[in-house]
Amino acid sequence: MQKIRVGILGASGYTGAELVRLLAQHPYVEIALLTADRKAGQPLQSVFPHLGYLDLPDLVAIDDVEWAGLDLDLVFCALPHATSQKIIKGLLHGADDTLLDDMIVVDATDHASAIQKSVKVIDLSADFRLRDVETYAKWYGGEHTAPELQQEAVYGLTELSREEVKSARLVACPGCYPTAALLSLIPLLLAKVISTEGIIIDAKSGVSGAGRSLRESNLFTEVAEGMHPYGIAAHRHSPEIEQELSKAAGEGVYVTFTPHLVPMNRGELETIYVTLADGQSGEDLRAVLSKQYAEDHFVQVLGEGDIPATRNVRGSNLCQIAVFDDRIPGRAIIVVAIDNLVKGSSGQAIQNMNLMFGFPETLSLEQAPLFP
Amino acid sequence: MQKIRVGILGASGYTGAELVRLLAQHPYVEIALLTADRKAGQPLQSVFPHLGYLDLPDLVAIDDVEWAGLDLDLVFCALPHATSQKIIKGLLHGADDTLLDDMIVVDATDHASAIQKSVKVIDLSADFRLRDVETYAKWYGGEHTAPELQQEAVYGLTELSREEVKSARLVACPGCYPTAALLSLIPLLLAKVISTEGIIIDAKSGVSGAGRSLRESNLFTEVAEGMHPYGIAAHRHSPEIEQELSKAAGEGVYVTFTPHLVPMNRGELETIYVTLADGQSGEDLRAVLSKQYAEDHFVQVLGEGDIPATRNVRGSNLCQIAVFDDRIPGRAIIVVAIDNLVKGSSGQAIQNMNLMFGFPETLSLEQAPLFP
Amino acid sequence: MQKIRVGILGASGYTGAELVRLLAQHPYVEIALLTADRKAGQPLQSVFPHLGYLDLPDLVAIDDVEWAGLDLDLVFCALPHATSQKIIKGLLHGADDTLLDDMIVVDATDHASAIQKSVKVIDLSADFRLRDVETYAKWYGGEHTAPELQQEAVYGLTELSREEVKSARLVACPGCYPTAALLSLIPLLLAKVISTEGIIIDAKSGVSGAGRSLRESNLFTEVAEGMHPYGIAAHRHSPEIEQELSKAAGEGVYVTFTPHLVPMNRGELETIYVTLADGQSGEDLRAVLSKQYAEDHFVQVLGEGDIPATRNVRGSNLCQIAVFDDRIPGRAIIVVAIDNLVKGSSGQAIQNMNLMFGFPETLSLEQAPLFP
Amino acid sequence: MQKIRVGILGASGYTGAELVRLLAQHPYVEIALLTADRKAGQPLQSVFPHLGYLDLPDLVAIDDVEWAGLDLDLVFCALPHATSQKIIKGLLHGADDTLLDDMIVVDATDHASAIQKSVKVIDLSADFRLRDVETYAKWYGGEHTAPELQQEAVYGLTELSREEVKSARLVACPGCYPTAALLSLIPLLLAKVISTEGIIIDAKSGVSGAGRSLRESNLFTEVAEGMHPYGIAAHRHSPEIEQELSKAAGEGVYVTFTPHLVPMNRGELETIYVTLADGQSGEDLRAVLSKQYAEDHFVQVLGEGDIPATRNVRGSNLCQIAVFDDRIPGRAIIVVAIDNLVKGSSGQAIQNMNLMFGFPETLSLEQAPLFP
Repeated sequence: MQKIRVGILGASGYTGAELVRLLAQHPYVEIALLTADRKAGQPLQSVFPHLGYLDLPDLVAIDDVEWAGLDLDLVFCALPHATSQKIIKGLLHGADDTLLDDMIVVDATDHASAIQKSVKVIDLSADFRLRDVETYAKWYGGEHTAPELQQEAVYGLTELSREEVKSARLVACPGCYPTAALLSLIPLLLAKVISTEGIIIDAKSGVSGAGRSLRESNLFTEVAEGMHPYGIAAHRHSPEIEQELSKAAGEGVYVTFTPHLVPMNRGELETIYVTLADGQSGEDLRAVLSKQYAEDHFVQVLGEGDIPATRNVRGSNLCQIAVFDDRIPGRAIIVVAIDNLVKGSSGQAIQNMNLMFGFPETLSLEQAPLFP
Repeated sequence: MQKIRVGILGASGYTGAELVRLLAQHPYVEIALLTADRKAGQPLQSVFPHLGYLDLPDLVAIDDVEWAGLDLDLVFCALPHATSQKIIKGLLHGADDTLLDDMIVVDATDHASAIQKSVKVIDLSADFRLRDVETYAKWYGGEHTAPELQQEAVYGLTELSREEVKSARLVACPGCYPTAALLSLIPLLLAKVISTEGIIIDAKSGVSGAGRSLRESNLFTEVAEGMHPYGIAAHRHSPEIEQELSKAAGEGVYVTFTPHLVPMNRGELETIYVTLADGQSGEDLRAVLSKQYAEDHFVQVLGEGDIPATRNVRGSNLCQIAVFDDRIPGRAIIVVAIDNLVKGSSGQAIQNMNLMFGFPETLSLEQAPLFP
Repeated sequence: MQKIRVGILGASGYTGAELVRLLAQHPYVEIALLTADRKAGQPLQSVFPHLGYLDLPDLVAIDDVEWAGLDLDLVFCALPHATSQKIIKGLLHGADDTLLDDMIVVDATDHASAIQKSVKVIDLSADFRLRDVETYAKWYGGEHTAPELQQEAVYGLTELSREEVKSARLVACPGCYPTAALLSLIPLLLAKVISTEGIIIDAKSGVSGAGRSLRESNLFTEVAEGMHPYGIAAHRHSPEIEQELSKAAGEGVYVTFTPHLVPMNRGELETIYVTLADGQSGEDLRAVLSKQYAEDHFVQVLGEGDIPATRNVRGSNLCQIAVFDDRIPGRAIIVVAIDNLVKGSSGQAIQNMNLMFGFPETLSLEQAPLFP
Repeated sequence: MQKIRVGILGASGYTGAELVRLLAQHPYVEIALLTADRKAGQPLQSVFPHLGYLDLPDLVAIDDVEWAGLDLDLVFCALPHATSQKIIKGLLHGADDTLLDDMIVVDATDHASAIQKSVKVIDLSADFRLRDVETYAKWYGGEHTAPELQQEAVYGLTELSREEVKSARLVACPGCYPTAALLSLIPLLLAKVISTEGIIIDAKSGVSGAGRSLRESNLFTEVAEGMHPYGIAAHRHSPEIEQELSKAAGEGVYVTFTPHLVPMNRGELETIYVTLADGQSGEDLRAVLSKQYAEDHFVQVLGEGDIPATRNVRGSNLCQIAVFDDRIPGRAIIVVAIDNLVKGSSGQAIQNMNLMFGFPETLSLEQAPLFP
């Protein structure tokens, strides 16, 4: 099979590095472009010494990319929200003039349309996750500048949207918290075995979820040996979770969602409290999930009594789900564990890539978890 | 003021060490006895090198204690449950013959009654927390052997039971999880600003909560860089929480309670989801709690938007509580942080001791939190 | 290429799990046997849930193995020292009667010799690392029971003993500390650019180096948020390091070696202080090492000023080495980083396996380091 | 005893917070001033929520301090080097015009001299540690602007310079690494039981040693689960250590010094390799140290075989020292553990304060270590 040429925008962040780490083992991918504005001109080694032994292009500023000669098949966009939509609009529509200048060598219209035809985009930012223009504006503090792409984008929760992903030009990768919540809750809502009301998601994440940006709150000394919630009743992943749950339920679903910061690098655990539909039990929920994911390599529905743990999925694209009966009749507790940087971000992005290009879905994602 | 003579039973565990750490600064306490069966004969230094510079008696096996000459005013019991009740029964009733043999030098009856009259006991185990004999048997796997003391014991949640503690002969210190849950929920139930139904307590604890016993699951390599829940819908602190909440509410209260293990030494955080009583808001709850704890040194009710964190209470007897409105109307989120070994165990025990002996309540507990 | 059939003895420890993790991606290996005495009868999933999704044989007690039908090509021995030599002697010589009973179905002599002919052994214990019988007895507290195999065994420091490894029947994998020390020091001694005297190795290791055994000193609470040396001037890796350095130098080399325990799961760092040979500089040492490892995939000799870090090799078979001039004239500082469980143990074992069976040396070891 | 009025300059850093934590329990200290330029106007609570329950003045910018009315007895200066010397010069000499403007209300000369007479300064920066003007310029990248104070300042390694500290107007607190190195090495050099040559200090520090400044290298994700050296053969504490060792030895002493970053908040461990003087043994060294510190509360010289660990001193002003014979004849290994923020910084500063003002030396420093 011929290799595809891939660009990674925002390669100096953790999701960028994780894409490189995983793609380094992909037999059909050639990394042809790595951008990082503040670190432009540096080899990836100076930004991520652990990847220094790989043979990769140096980092370039996004404004200095000579798109024409790159002949990219796919771009992973690991840029901040708001920036992402501008860049992606330029890539797909040729509508961003500044970017267009860089892209065009001979004939702007022809070239832009050439790019438009060929390149696919997998966006790891939040820019194309929400379908509703007003919801986006409210939660992300500004109007969306590519609303037509917002409509076109496929929400890439792989196991539950394979067919749409396969034919997508633009895939919006789910946030890490939504990935864990939706993989467990959507099948249950579709099967109508839980109530749409009173869903409470108590989420815990490792620090890499906060990215590599310089904030006092992310210093080792501020985080180690302690824990606390943040963004209580105000986290941007709430509307994303609600959008997809509502879609599955066929009615408005609203959730209580509280994320916590845990002193570990990687890993995300969600403890989800649900009300059972009449006559349902934890066992019924487990049966629904087991059936849903029977053929899926990455989603493990655990047996009765087995408890998901982030250490069991660390560094891998796996997702562990378990269901427990609560002592309170009519209630159940669902526990989900993923690695926020893999299944919660870069791994799922590559899983989507594999689908979009007809590769085996697990390619370059087969690594077993790293424990201890 | 004259010093009281104190014994610590089970001094080789973490709660025992924490009692020593804190009492070392108490001006009116002399530690006259330290027991530890498996480490008997050793100086405390070999078991806890960090306390080696203190001038303390060597560890002795509990069977080798010569009670008669010790003239203890107070015994802290940091032994496992089941064992605790036997020892305490002996101490208070002279009813345990084996123990009595050790206690009696001249005249068994006289001496035992002498001990019975004078010594007070603060129990850090679970043995005297539950009032109901059957509930104890169900959750702790065996019949209680001192049911009359079970009735006599005062549940030592200090801020909410000061008067009973002051005159108690036997105080049962609350479990770490119940301490955090009850300090926040009891005032709200008393004030009837929350519903008695649908209370969900998602709890996170540092590893010291598991004690110093040798279990594979507590190895550094099993815990570091990961997290997971445990005892889902089956943790022994559930009936304890429910007993006290029910007492406050004047009706049966049942809670969903899920503890999690977090890779940190100390600290406990509870995220509690409640349904508001009609017409109540998060602000109302905050007002109730602020009023309740206005005069209390150790319980901090945080202002709107401020978030409790375990790092803010590490090593101290402080408890931080905050209330947040949920996005879901009619619901609120309460966050509580304590140090499980201090306010959740040994610190609260000493706070009770101070009350029982008429010392200022904060004595030897004034240390500021250790951060970072 | 046909798959080889592999057995892992001692599969419930961390080195055993690490062999499974890495071999799971090896195209030419079939894991046909997993032993673990205390966990016999269990699926690997219950011992290592992170590997539960792999299709592997259940754990069996070593005494219950039916060797005859297994037709193994290779056995990895991850058992404690002393035990290892007995088992391996049985495997290779048929001399251990007890074991022989299990191995023999029809004809003891024939069968044992059949095993003897075919099976190869890679030992991860310390039993076959030392060549000198008395040194072994002194440091490991007992006489060696297979001295003839002790002589036969090849010391499998892969990069520096490729040819011997290729043709070996029994390979003794170096200890984790020796691996880092020897990879950096042997080429320098061979090139005579450093003195044989005054070599000081200050070593730091993550906790997984202590294995999975239940010792109080390995509890999370004992290790997290602290560090300390151990085995000062008395660690068993000293004579192993000295044996190989002496061999390289052609004279007796004695080292100062101090290991430290660091609160991290994986990773080993050695800071080595050496005296330069006359006229040599740090740059000269770097040149020697760069030349030595120019063609080696796993050993990275860093450029001037670049600093090795365990995070740069975590989870991988890489080894980073750097040389620094000391401020004291005539002295240099060498820094080496490996993952103790991979290059320091199971990874190097597989690297040796690849050589012994004619596979590409890097097979199943290409995973990039996991950071963060 | 009357309370002294104390100011803390640079109260938003970790050493500032640590001063507040410890002084909060001092019966004779009133904190009258807290400065922090970037956080000016905020209560300390918003910068250090763990100290929020204390009754303290709000943070002010140093330029906004109204010195005249404060009537300070002592200023702790926890500012960056270079800045410190300017401020301290102003405080002690009235020579900094800008500062003088703020200090003078009525009569500049009178008032400055009033300040000059009364106020004492304990500097936690590096500005007054080095005596040699050129060495300072070389290592700190700029000329010293208060060379006369550089000469006057007393190097406040408390146990070894009590008399000078008692009468000092300006005390320069030693760096954290020098504190551990000098407490162990100076008595040995004075007693001439070790050689002045070939001293190698391999140092390991928790991350709080790097302060609270925003650097990518201090993010949790960059530090956790890994370790590495830094400042190899180039750390600014080298000349400081050499200055004091040379003074003790009466000749030039040069050391090899390599610091490492360890994933823990607090704690510093130094493993020091020395050559014994003729006829000396590890036991002799231990005897020298034991005699030296026989009367000192904070320095613990451990018995043969006992190993210092940072967990044994965490949060306390203690220093543990132990001596081990190396296997190489004529060599010994010294291990020292301190808490870098306490004995290595703020604790030692307070210890000096106690001496300067005639308080008992251990006042507010008696807290036992926090373990686990």
